[in-house]
Amino acid sequence: MKFLHLEEQLSREEIKKLQLVRLKSAVARAKKSPFYAKKLKGIEPEDLKSIEDVKLLPFTTKEDLREHYPYGFLTVPKSEFVRLHASSGTTGSPTAILYTENDLNTWADLMARCLFMVGVRKEDVFQNMSGYGLFTGGLGIHYGAERLGCLTIPAGAGNSKRQIKLLKDFAVSVVHIIPSYALHLSTVFEGLGINPKDFNLRIFLIGAEPHTDETRRRIEEIYGVKAFNSYGLSEMNGPGVAFECEYQNGMHIWEDAFLAEIVDPVDLTTLPEGEVGELIMTTLAREGMPLIRYRTKDLTRFLPGECPCGRSHVRIDRITGRADDMIILKGVNIYPMQVEKVLMSMKEVGQNYLIELYKEGHLDQMRVKVEIKDEYFVEDMRVLKALQSKIAKNLREEILITPRVELVEHNSLPKSQGKAIRVIDLRN
Amino acid sequence: MKFLHLEEQLSREEIKKLQLVRLKSAVARAKKSPFYAKKLKGIEPEDLKSIEDVKLLPFTTKEDLREHYPYGFLTVPKSEFVRLHASSGTTGSPTAILYTENDLNTWADLMARCLFMVGVRKEDVFQNMSGYGLFTGGLGIHYGAERLGCLTIPAGAGNSKRQIKLLKDFAVSVVHIIPSYALHLSTVFEGLGINPKDFNLRIFLIGAEPHTDETRRRIEEIYGVKAFNSYGLSEMNGPGVAFECEYQNGMHIWEDAFLAEIVDPVDLTTLPEGEVGELIMTTLAREGMPLIRYRTKDLTRFLPGECPCGRSHVRIDRITGRADDMIILKGVNIYPMQVEKVLMSMKEVGQNYLIELYKEGHLDQMRVKVEIKDEYFVEDMRVLKALQSKIAKNLREEILITPRVELVEHNSLPKSQGKAIRVIDLRN
Repeated sequence: MKFLHLEEQLSREEIKKLQLVRLKSAVARAKKSPFYAKKLKGIEPEDLKSIEDVKLLPFTTKEDLREHYPYGFLTVPKSEFVRLHASSGTTGSPTAILYTENDLNTWADLMARCLFMVGVRKEDVFQNMSGYGLFTGGLGIHYGAERLGCLTIPAGAGNSKRQIKLLKDFAVSVVHIIPSYALHLSTVFEGLGINPKDFNLRIFLIGAEPHTDETRRRIEEIYGVKAFNSYGLSEMNGPGVAFECEYQNGMHIWEDAFLAEIVDPVDLTTLPEGEVGELIMTTLAREGMPLIRYRTKDLTRFLPGECPCGRSHVRIDRITGRADDMIILKGVNIYPMQVEKVLMSMKEVGQNYLIELYKEGHLDQMRVKVEIKDEYFVEDMRVLKALQSKIAKNLREEILITPRVELVEHNSLPKSQGKAIRVIDLRN
Repeated sequence: MKFLHLEEQLSREEIKKLQLVRLKSAVARAKKSPFYAKKLKGIEPEDLKSIEDVKLLPFTTKEDLREHYPYGFLTVPKSEFVRLHASSGTTGSPTAILYTENDLNTWADLMARCLFMVGVRKEDVFQNMSGYGLFTGGLGIHYGAERLGCLTIPAGAGNSKRQIKLLKDFAVSVVHIIPSYALHLSTVFEGLGINPKDFNLRIFLIGAEPHTDETRRRIEEIYGVKAFNSYGLSEMNGPGVAFECEYQNGMHIWEDAFLAEIVDPVDLTTLPEGEVGELIMTTLAREGMPLIRYRTKDLTRFLPGECPCGRSHVRIDRITGRADDMIILKGVNIYPMQVEKVLMSMKEVGQNYLIELYKEGHLDQMRVKVEIKDEYFVEDMRVLKALQSKIAKNLREEILITPRVELVEHNSLPKSQGKAIRVIDLRN
């Protein structure tokens, strides 16, 4: 069996047809919520003649979710919902996503489909190193793995020594892990004198924070696994929105469940295929809380061409960053991912780095602290100086300005157990 | 509808009959595991003529689970399991419980039955303040609430201000919370100047640590709720083993799923009804990892008489402590729960206390640090001295020795967000 669900085998044409049918019903359903009853006034499902007519619909933003928190987007009574996930704000209005039982089922199915696609099977032992609770990365992937029938270990985040003990004792074959934590965990393995390649590890699912292909290759090399990039956001359920297949050439978006567009983040016009812009998502299969043309703020592009895996669901490139993450320094636009790409491709560089923005007089400056592997952290100052210059030069080629580079010892930068903090802005 | 499941309405006689049938198949099933194949050698299901014949079977201990970790108790291939929960040991052998899909279903059903029994309904909003992950209190109750159809908020442990915000924003009516954290959370409410009685709270599920009825009444008073005692342990799935009904007069053990005995913790003979001893549990409905006569180490007794709720499932008294928790001081046996019972019945006492054991020369001594409410923490030393003596005297009446009593300010003792640490032994 190659595909878990029939929907994976749809042709482009069938996908488009299905999407139009579902978009119409999504609009009809959305209009039952207080927010969209107003927002979609005057627009009827039958106005949508083709899937391109999605452009007739207005955008929805995170601010809309905040302003109409907590119930403004619900299409059925509150008692029909069985799950709530929320962002972590303690002041102001957080955002909350509510799920009906059908929504949880759809989500688990999509997630199981992702896992099956990369080769996870019922016989696998799956350790989920994502935090549980309100964060969707925990329960989201958990339900998918359980649905597939994997022995699921809800390890949660942190407690590295226990993670390693569980990996060993239960011959874990599949792991869900945040990339920066995967790099940190490798230093714990090192400290214990254990080689993770001696374990039974086979597949890593990495996501929840943007990372480069260089980071992925490094993780694959350290653990002796294939690592697959995962994309999701709680507004679109959580994980399970898009996932790489065995070919690791971009992430297939499940177009039977989501309608994706790429637009210019400034003027919001649709971009030609292949251009990088903001990803816009519409839920096509969500019952209780449909979202229409949601602005994800994530930057990516559609990848052209067919995928050898046989799925015609469109692929997106890895997330370059968030529209919000962009650093503007001396008039140049820089994404943290560009820095990571350069650093992680250099053999001397360890598993962690930190970008600091600061003021020198009135000038904005960037300092990059870079962990250097022990074997390259030599006594000879001339050698270190040369390495420093090499890093600065490589960075300049990518980001067009020359940052100050500081070499620091292996394991000396703050460790992350959740999403890594890569940029600290000290300018104010 | 008064009962969620038919099994709740069984008569004593029907329960005994069902138990015998299920005990026989539990033994037959258990013998498929490496551990019981040996342990139950020579014992066949047909040797059990009545439910009292359970005494023919050997006990199982936590040490057995440790020694035969991780797979010694499994009756079906590893690939048939979909969930693992484990104790938190990082060194030595932890214990692990594995669940098949059927086991997860049974567990969720039992849990849903508990919730329904205390009045929780589909329309309720349920906030789970238990830690998720490997600890069974999180996912265990979560699955039960979701099965019942409650809007389930997987808040997890800690982050008190966010907990309060969620309680408010979603008009939460049912909360699962550790009793010591409930007391701590009340001080956070106080600090914010918010009265929890102004919220929509209706039902608290409290468990996961032994506590007294005095603590329960205090929690009910503070929050304006009915608080129901819950009993479970991961070796018997987790929560959902026994639960109070609306009458709050002991916890019904679900005897269709578990066979309970009370034995003398020293000579392991069955105790007459009503006497306090160690609770012994046998799984009657677990497929993948049955446990026979498991020594829980929890001390309690069967309560005599019928329950007005109409369920004939036997009731146990609240857990007095663990066989391991007993403090022997000057030849007297003391359980921390006895100290709590005295303290929580005194109006001057705040929400936290700590028992310290120490040496004075060669003599063992006990010191009890007691938080005093602000309004009683006065300047006048004579008043404080009198309060100190009153506490010492009340304690002496219960535990037969006079501990040293130290009065400390409200909120000055270490706060717990997990299970409370009530005893510190400084004797070695």
